[in-house]
Amino acid sequence: MSMTLREAAVQGKITPAMKRCAQEEGVAAAEICKGIASGCVAIPANKNRKLKRFVGIGQGLKTKINANIGTSKDHVDIEYELKKLKVALSMGADAVMDLSTGGPIEEIRRVILEHCPVPLGTVPIYQAAVETVEKRKKSIVDMRVKDILQTIERQAGEGVDFMTVHCGITRESAARLKKAGRILGVVSRGGAFTLEWMEYNQKENPLYERFDELLAIARAYDVTLSLGDGLRPGCLADATDPGQIQELVILGELTRRAWDAGVQVIIEGPGHMPMDQIAANVLLQKKLCFGAPFYVLGPLVTDIAPGYDHITSAIGGAVAAAAGADFLCYVTPAEHLKLPSLEDVKEGVVASRIAAHAADIVKKVPGALEADESMARSRSALDWQGQISLSIDPEKAKAYREEGGAYHGPTCTMCGEYCAIKVYKRALKGKK
Amino acid sequence: MSMTLREAAVQGKITPAMKRCAQEEGVAAAEICKGIASGCVAIPANKNRKLKRFVGIGQGLKTKINANIGTSKDHVDIEYELKKLKVALSMGADAVMDLSTGGPIEEIRRVILEHCPVPLGTVPIYQAAVETVEKRKKSIVDMRVKDILQTIERQAGEGVDFMTVHCGITRESAARLKKAGRILGVVSRGGAFTLEWMEYNQKENPLYERFDELLAIARAYDVTLSLGDGLRPGCLADATDPGQIQELVILGELTRRAWDAGVQVIIEGPGHMPMDQIAANVLLQKKLCFGAPFYVLGPLVTDIAPGYDHITSAIGGAVAAAAGADFLCYVTPAEHLKLPSLEDVKEGVVASRIAAHAADIVKKVPGALEADESMARSRSALDWQGQISLSIDPEKAKAYREEGGAYHGPTCTMCGEYCAIKVYKRALKGKK
Repeated sequence: MSMTLREAAVQGKITPAMKRCAQEEGVAAAEICKGIASGCVAIPANKNRKLKRFVGIGQGLKTKINANIGTSKDHVDIEYELKKLKVALSMGADAVMDLSTGGPIEEIRRVILEHCPVPLGTVPIYQAAVETVEKRKKSIVDMRVKDILQTIERQAGEGVDFMTVHCGITRESAARLKKAGRILGVVSRGGAFTLEWMEYNQKENPLYERFDELLAIARAYDVTLSLGDGLRPGCLADATDPGQIQELVILGELTRRAWDAGVQVIIEGPGHMPMDQIAANVLLQKKLCFGAPFYVLGPLVTDIAPGYDHITSAIGGAVAAAAGADFLCYVTPAEHLKLPSLEDVKEGVVASRIAAHAADIVKKVPGALEADESMARSRSALDWQGQISLSIDPEKAKAYREEGGAYHGPTCTMCGEYCAIKVYKRALKGKK
Repeated sequence: MSMTLREAAVQGKITPAMKRCAQEEGVAAAEICKGIASGCVAIPANKNRKLKRFVGIGQGLKTKINANIGTSKDHVDIEYELKKLKVALSMGADAVMDLSTGGPIEEIRRVILEHCPVPLGTVPIYQAAVETVEKRKKSIVDMRVKDILQTIERQAGEGVDFMTVHCGITRESAARLKKAGRILGVVSRGGAFTLEWMEYNQKENPLYERFDELLAIARAYDVTLSLGDGLRPGCLADATDPGQIQELVILGELTRRAWDAGVQVIIEGPGHMPMDQIAANVLLQKKLCFGAPFYVLGPLVTDIAPGYDHITSAIGGAVAAAAGADFLCYVTPAEHLKLPSLEDVKEGVVASRIAAHAADIVKKVPGALEADESMARSRSALDWQGQISLSIDPEKAKAYREEGGAYHGPTCTMCGEYCAIKVYKRALKGKK
């Protein structure tokens, strides 16, 4: 059995994946190797996949962003999902998760895997639950443990690079959750499935109880485990409560066990959260999980902006990443309202990229501030072509510039001839 | 001559404006009075205006937002500006600035003043410059000092509630600016006009030199001075440099003089700035300007996202307001590219409101977190009508919900029957 990336790293062996990742980041491959060995960096890369891009996530690297795509029972259209994939990639998504729960799930995943050059993630319990309901005509609580593990193994065999597994919902954390008196309880789909199963069957979470079996599968295919936060807060009032933190403590313990088994780990985090709790949550994750990469969904800094949650999560994501979060899961304007459209996917990826980049400037990631300086120089030169090409979304910048109307002089229609940049240049010369 | 709001406050007299502002904020009128007396709160309200809403800006109050509207030479359409005003107000702008530089400026301002129920601000030097160029057919450097002061007085007489005056660009701060070696120099329009005038004429800034005359006008009409940051950074690389900070030091000195003359003051701030410099800048402003309200434009946390600067500034605005900034000037997606359209105005106001609200939760403004809790309870109840009506933009939330397609069950098309909230409720019952 071949070594996992983590096993290689622990032995100080630099693999091609590490080299390619290092090249993209502009850091030494030895640094990447050291990061993986310490657990502070992960490169999700299933050994059965042929990735076009090896994406490093973690300390010292550019903040990465993930875009969720996938069908729901009410919207099944493989071609449309492929279009979402294409838009997400073209706008700069570093990873993609297929969260399909509707239609021919396996076929959809196969097609997405085939067309996805970057790491692909899934939440296997979705498939296990959906198949229990759709094929076996039973309820979620009737999921068989072997079905869950077999689904994980099947997806691992297909090449899925990272998987969300909600191993931290245990009888212990669930008990604390219930005492916490939340407004919104559990808002993670996989978390809710798991909890319902546990409550009905009065059993421990099988992915916690049989974590070693899960690790054996992950090790065999070199799947990175994304330890999910099934108890993440779904509203500001529920943030940083004992349920959430108890789960995080457990995820920290599982992190060590995964590392010992040669498996890479990413930790998932909140959620909805007031801005002033975000930095503390990042610190807590880094401490309790020994520096493992932190993958946050948002955080959304207010609950009251459905239709604009790409913005609420860009605020929270920027604050989180500036405080040390490594991987941002995008949120689209459709969040809380509907399955995202193509346009929503685009808006979500761009908002996430802005948050990631703003944080990379704070993190002093090489090249980050330099990109802003190039833009500033183009602005100073009133070089519109330069400004457009340096934009995060050149197409939109160009369209806006052109919508400016008939006037296409050296300035823009905001100020016209009263452009401050133009006036300042004259001022420097001290001439009329 | 009647007292200004500040003079009344210093004498401990509670005016109707203070009462109405207090009512809206849900605080005691005596608190507002004390805030104005200390200078930490301002209520821009020209004595010649009949405001429908008295808007308090400053410590302990809800974070307010301003929307800039107005023509440029390339886009003159009064009806369209009125539509912008309407959209800005309907989306929740607390104040509006008319920055017109094109067409019949006075007529435009008259119409906007007539239709604007909230405080209206201007930058009088725009009109002085434009009239010098358009009417006198001269250059900006030929502005006569009397024209500048007369324009200010004329606008004050018309009822303008607050005015941006770039009094902090002095020979001293300009010298430090030039030594700072900025990439983008001066990006404030009024700042650039002032600097060009000073350089060409080799004279001190007349609004600094004749600050007492300016104060006499402001006092006579009870105009709140918004001490502009003509040297604000226009790109991340230029942030927090000696030019910017020297100007702020001077604005602090002028703040005291304005207060002593019975005039309310607001301080304008950056600009473009890396996230991790924002809190320090707010602290600096509060210290150097003795707690005067801080009015920030952005800050934009990256330069590379033209077309999305409502998002870059929502991130910076949220961070700034959470750190103590009191008043956010919106930035629209059109920033750096063109004069904003109606849709841009709407997007800009909503993004700013999100930032302000996210910060108000941190500031523990009464009612802020409660709004989020109400939304969370509606979500928990899968009460869609409630969720829509509690949204920052109910129209968009409703449209998105409806676009979800044929499925209009109790959940949404994101998860359909696999809705976590629904599953969690079942889990609580421990039933299939």
